[in-house]
Amino acid sequence: MKHRSPAVRLFAALIAFTFLAAGLPGNARAFVKDVANFTLENGMQVVVIPDHRAPVVTHMVWYRVGAADEPLGQAGIAHFLEHLMFKGTPSNPNGSFSKYVASVGGQENAFTSSDYTAYFQRVAKEHLADMMRLEADRMENLVLTKEVVDPERDVIMEERRSRTDNNPGAQLSEALEATLWFEHPYGRPVIGWMNEMEKLTLDDAISYYDRYYTPNNAILIVAGDVDAAEVKRLAEETYGKLKRRAEPPPRVRPEEPVHRTHRMVRLESPLVTQPSLTRSYVVPSYTTADREGLTGEAEALDLFAELLFGGSTSALYQKLVVEDKLAVSIGGYYRGTMLDDGELVLFASPAPGTTLEQLEAAIDREMAAFLKSEITEETLARVKRSVIATSVYAQDSQQTLARVFGTALTTGRTVDNVLTWTDRVRAVTADEILAVGLKYLDINQAATGYLLPASAPSRS
Amino acid sequence: MKHRSPAVRLFAALIAFTFLAAGLPGNARAFVKDVANFTLENGMQVVVIPDHRAPVVTHMVWYRVGAADEPLGQAGIAHFLEHLMFKGTPSNPNGSFSKYVASVGGQENAFTSSDYTAYFQRVAKEHLADMMRLEADRMENLVLTKEVVDPERDVIMEERRSRTDNNPGAQLSEALEATLWFEHPYGRPVIGWMNEMEKLTLDDAISYYDRYYTPNNAILIVAGDVDAAEVKRLAEETYGKLKRRAEPPPRVRPEEPVHRTHRMVRLESPLVTQPSLTRSYVVPSYTTADREGLTGEAEALDLFAELLFGGSTSALYQKLVVEDKLAVSIGGYYRGTMLDDGELVLFASPAPGTTLEQLEAAIDREMAAFLKSEITEETLARVKRSVIATSVYAQDSQQTLARVFGTALTTGRTVDNVLTWTDRVRAVTADEILAVGLKYLDINQAATGYLLPASAPSRS
Repeated sequence: MKHRSPAVRLFAALIAFTFLAAGLPGNARAFVKDVANFTLENGMQVVVIPDHRAPVVTHMVWYRVGAADEPLGQAGIAHFLEHLMFKGTPSNPNGSFSKYVASVGGQENAFTSSDYTAYFQRVAKEHLADMMRLEADRMENLVLTKEVVDPERDVIMEERRSRTDNNPGAQLSEALEATLWFEHPYGRPVIGWMNEMEKLTLDDAISYYDRYYTPNNAILIVAGDVDAAEVKRLAEETYGKLKRRAEPPPRVRPEEPVHRTHRMVRLESPLVTQPSLTRSYVVPSYTTADREGLTGEAEALDLFAELLFGGSTSALYQKLVVEDKLAVSIGGYYRGTMLDDGELVLFASPAPGTTLEQLEAAIDREMAAFLKSEITEETLARVKRSVIATSVYAQDSQQTLARVFGTALTTGRTVDNVLTWTDRVRAVTADEILAVGLKYLDINQAATGYLLPASAPSRS
Repeated sequence: MKHRSPAVRLFAALIAFTFLAAGLPGNARAFVKDVANFTLENGMQVVVIPDHRAPVVTHMVWYRVGAADEPLGQAGIAHFLEHLMFKGTPSNPNGSFSKYVASVGGQENAFTSSDYTAYFQRVAKEHLADMMRLEADRMENLVLTKEVVDPERDVIMEERRSRTDNNPGAQLSEALEATLWFEHPYGRPVIGWMNEMEKLTLDDAISYYDRYYTPNNAILIVAGDVDAAEVKRLAEETYGKLKRRAEPPPRVRPEEPVHRTHRMVRLESPLVTQPSLTRSYVVPSYTTADREGLTGEAEALDLFAELLFGGSTSALYQKLVVEDKLAVSIGGYYRGTMLDDGELVLFASPAPGTTLEQLEAAIDREMAAFLKSEITEETLARVKRSVIATSVYAQDSQQTLARVFGTALTTGRTVDNVLTWTDRVRAVTADEILAVGLKYLDINQAATGYLLPASAPSRS
């Protein structure tokens, strides 16, 4: 359905740059200073982020379940449920929730990632109570029948056809992840594998809904022109009436074996005009760094990514695009907001006359040189300003602000962890940044993808 | 333990060449003409292969369970159970079964693959009844305690350390399979991933034993100086007394998604002296070809593999080793005796001065040329003779003979299917051989591994 965004792993990456920071100057600080955080009696967590710039609210419900929690053989069920949640309940049938949002000039959306599934509406503040009533209703009373499930299965399959199966870049990306992760379900696409999607049944949908869509597995986030007391009262009247329908199992996913090889994936297609390469390294996420006592490594990885390939001032861009003219583009990011391990991702397109093999060799050479270089105080200060500023600007969007908390709370972190992020980034030293680079830029923890026009000459 | 072979996927490949054939001339025919096949009341299948050349018997029990049937997160449990089966029962404690076999000058062994687990002894015929009594005893009465399980876990972990973790070729092979298969458990090593092996518990072992070690999941194969009536009587007195302890679940494994990329795995190690490459294509097995109505394709693949890279007379060997001198070795095989899909595997080592990239490009070129070539009647007759002769010679080993039936019956085929194999191979045409080549030599259904000395120059 057009009004809903697809299941996107990439989203998690964007969020890495949009951590909300406390203790910031000016407006940014003004609207995050009173973040409230409490839990209803049935276990539903609530976060309230006052933002009085306009009389609107962003209302989100996040579930601590995503594609990496799916039963084996049911890849795609998390995203399928996201679609089915728009179908209706006995009190609000036939998409009447969506119609109501549209009728009051609101916006709505939903998204599924490996680690979470979320639903949101942005409406004038007077409609908040209705949003909460309707969202609570579909958490408990969703009607799942063959008549609802069968046609929607066709919809998600068509979504996969148009977004992945007809898109060489998406195909490569999917294969790259599957190759990077041998056992962990991060290797499975959020949208699902077609051969499993086509077999998803009504019973699968019901079991999944009954197991995970329960208030004790959900987080309510309200950002906007509200105060915590008001949200608490409304939440107790709506979500607070829901019973705990299940106790979701611990989120323990299969772990990766030790990796000892560099993996590569190659896709040639007539649909490709510009060759490109992508490389992902498995690295700790914010959550696994904490879990494993690797204090500060995630913050250092955020800065490392920014320094190495995070934009046009980055080391790789300056050397390979500006100076040597071997590449027409280079970029990358740290995907750190995951429940399990994260990824350091870089991508590049070669300049005409340069092969992907040559570009990859140049990237490896320059990364090695970077790890031997010195990060000056000036560079360190600049990159910290840049990373922190990105997160400050992101707060201008009420929706982004709410997403930052939702992502953190569904991937093993806390409100406090979000609020102290800036301070932790400020404390990172140049040595710590180079240390995580040396530790994690290990080719045997990486997979590299080549996207090539079908007519490209074969390798040397 | 030294007297038992390791868990080997490769074994299945060998079997592809050792199908037993009916209607063969001379001695070969003599001892396969009276193969008997019946089922005990508790569901245990029995195959008797009379072979009166010497007063010895090969006694095997095969279970329809292997590493591809393991619960998620317990990679290695199938092989672990294989080890634990040697520990003892109340009636025959402390390895007394093995001691007995040794005391009568017998041999014993056990092996685990993705699709089966088997135990065998070769003894003088008068000890057959005792073998059956002892093997039946451990099918039902194995003692599994913490005292037994904990030290044996150290043994399998040490086995993995010495066979895989210290062996770059084994590491590459493991990563290649994991990269070839995104979802199917054939992508997991039979020995297990170390991080899962170290967590295998007593409870895991008990559940696995109770679920799969039951007569209705087992096949008795006796080859040797016996007749069917005698084996039947002994089997009823031993195995026939066992109760059905469980109904093992259907062997439905996760299926592969559609593949659209060529995957590559690269391992550099100072332990490597001779570079080599390995490439595997996913193709139908004998069983899946039948299941999917692809009649004759598996037989054609057996001949295709032999023609293309099956020995020193093969097309690739003649061209690249003998004529162009780009390679010092080339070989390959069709791994067709699997419950789910099989693999077409080729491997090669470059001559000094040739890179793996150059050799791979040459192999691709020569394979394409082969698919456009014509197979003469003479060549076709030669390759059929060669493939059939291999299976005939294999019958000289009583153990191989028994293995052929055990493998077939645990991977979805029948005794009759084994006995008619020669006729089916004889019926394959040259066009059918080239057709399976054209159909299955699709680079996007393949993974290629490079094994390189650590000091090798990086790619061009």
